[in-house]
Amino acid sequence: MRTRQALMKAAATEFDRYGYDGTSLSAISKAAGLSIGAVTFHFPTKVHLADAVQEEGRSVTVAALERLAAEPMTPLRMVIDLTLELTRLMEQEPAVRSAIRLSRERPATVSWSDAWLPTVRSLLDRAYESGQLHTDALPADVTTLVEHLTSGAEAYLRSRMGSDPAFESAVAQLKRVWRLALAGVSAEGPAVPRQTGSPENPA
Amino acid sequence: MRTRQALMKAAATEFDRYGYDGTSLSAISKAAGLSIGAVTFHFPTKVHLADAVQEEGRSVTVAALERLAAEPMTPLRMVIDLTLELTRLMEQEPAVRSAIRLSRERPATVSWSDAWLPTVRSLLDRAYESGQLHTDALPADVTTLVEHLTSGAEAYLRSRMGSDPAFESAVAQLKRVWRLALAGVSAEGPAVPRQTGSPENPA
Repeated sequence: MRTRQALMKAAATEFDRYGYDGTSLSAISKAAGLSIGAVTFHFPTKVHLADAVQEEGRSVTVAALERLAAEPMTPLRMVIDLTLELTRLMEQEPAVRSAIRLSRERPATVSWSDAWLPTVRSLLDRAYESGQLHTDALPADVTTLVEHLTSGAEAYLRSRMGSDPAFESAVAQLKRVWRLALAGVSAEGPAVPRQTGSPENPA
Repeated sequence: MRTRQALMKAAATEFDRYGYDGTSLSAISKAAGLSIGAVTFHFPTKVHLADAVQEEGRSVTVAALERLAAEPMTPLRMVIDLTLELTRLMEQEPAVRSAIRLSRERPATVSWSDAWLPTVRSLLDRAYESGQLHTDALPADVTTLVEHLTSGAEAYLRSRMGSDPAFESAVAQLKRVWRLALAGVSAEGPAVPRQTGSPENPA
């Protein structure tokens, strides 16, 4: 079992860095410090390993969502916290980054966003029904916004990888962006200043 | 000269699809229908070709920005149109998609966003000074928002590549997202509905 875990960990790191095509079973066995025989005993092919890593990335994501769902908060606040949690997972969990990259590079497999996007959509439907969203902020559009912000967080993270860790965290950056998206950027539309300390202020 | 152009075109397509590591000079020569000798006559190594494609992607981007800058419009409107134009370029120009991907995969080279991000930042400074932005929508934060939205557009585009062309265009999607970002998502902050047909409405 420990061998399997060591392999999964090494595979997550390799797939995250080099992608599906750029990763070989022998590179993974080397990174895990195991023989190629030990690798193929647990995972006969690269497909099996990639599937297992994607599955783990999704499980980690679903578990985080379930922890969040237990908290008492409004649907809109939950969406915001969910995206911040996804970003934290991207920062800290190679299996999650790997699942994101692999599901992009292997379009025939289950997408990583399937683990959380339906939840976001139904939370936004509830937020709209309960009057938390602007009347012209339709749930479908806000869902698209959430997808853009999550992709933006991942892109920022990847662009900063391996460089100075003093860079702003992707989570802190997304908080700044959410503040804008909630209150609006333009002075022409919303003239009323954002209420600080409101439940939707992700400070 | 025609050979050089055919090579650049083939290289842009290959780099865009398979990335720097996944592309070889022989694959490019095959895609261009040229001998490997013809390739190395113009571009001795893959580095030379990748540099040339990145440079072309930046040039195309800068030219589009210059066309935009000639139009009479407010700084905020210009930022919005600029991001829509970048997205249109991503959709239509393999050299631009290639430049984005290559500058990500070759961090030591000039980043594609260097071609437009400084312009966005200075436009947003002007938008803030002229009262177009919310008083708490600081130019640095709005710049970060723009980066997230642009990454989101690219991610959407890549996820849809090769699939049903009936999917919504990335430009149309970004317009929907901008409408939200301008007016704000939350009903709590900005209670005043967005003014339709305003110069900031990217309809």
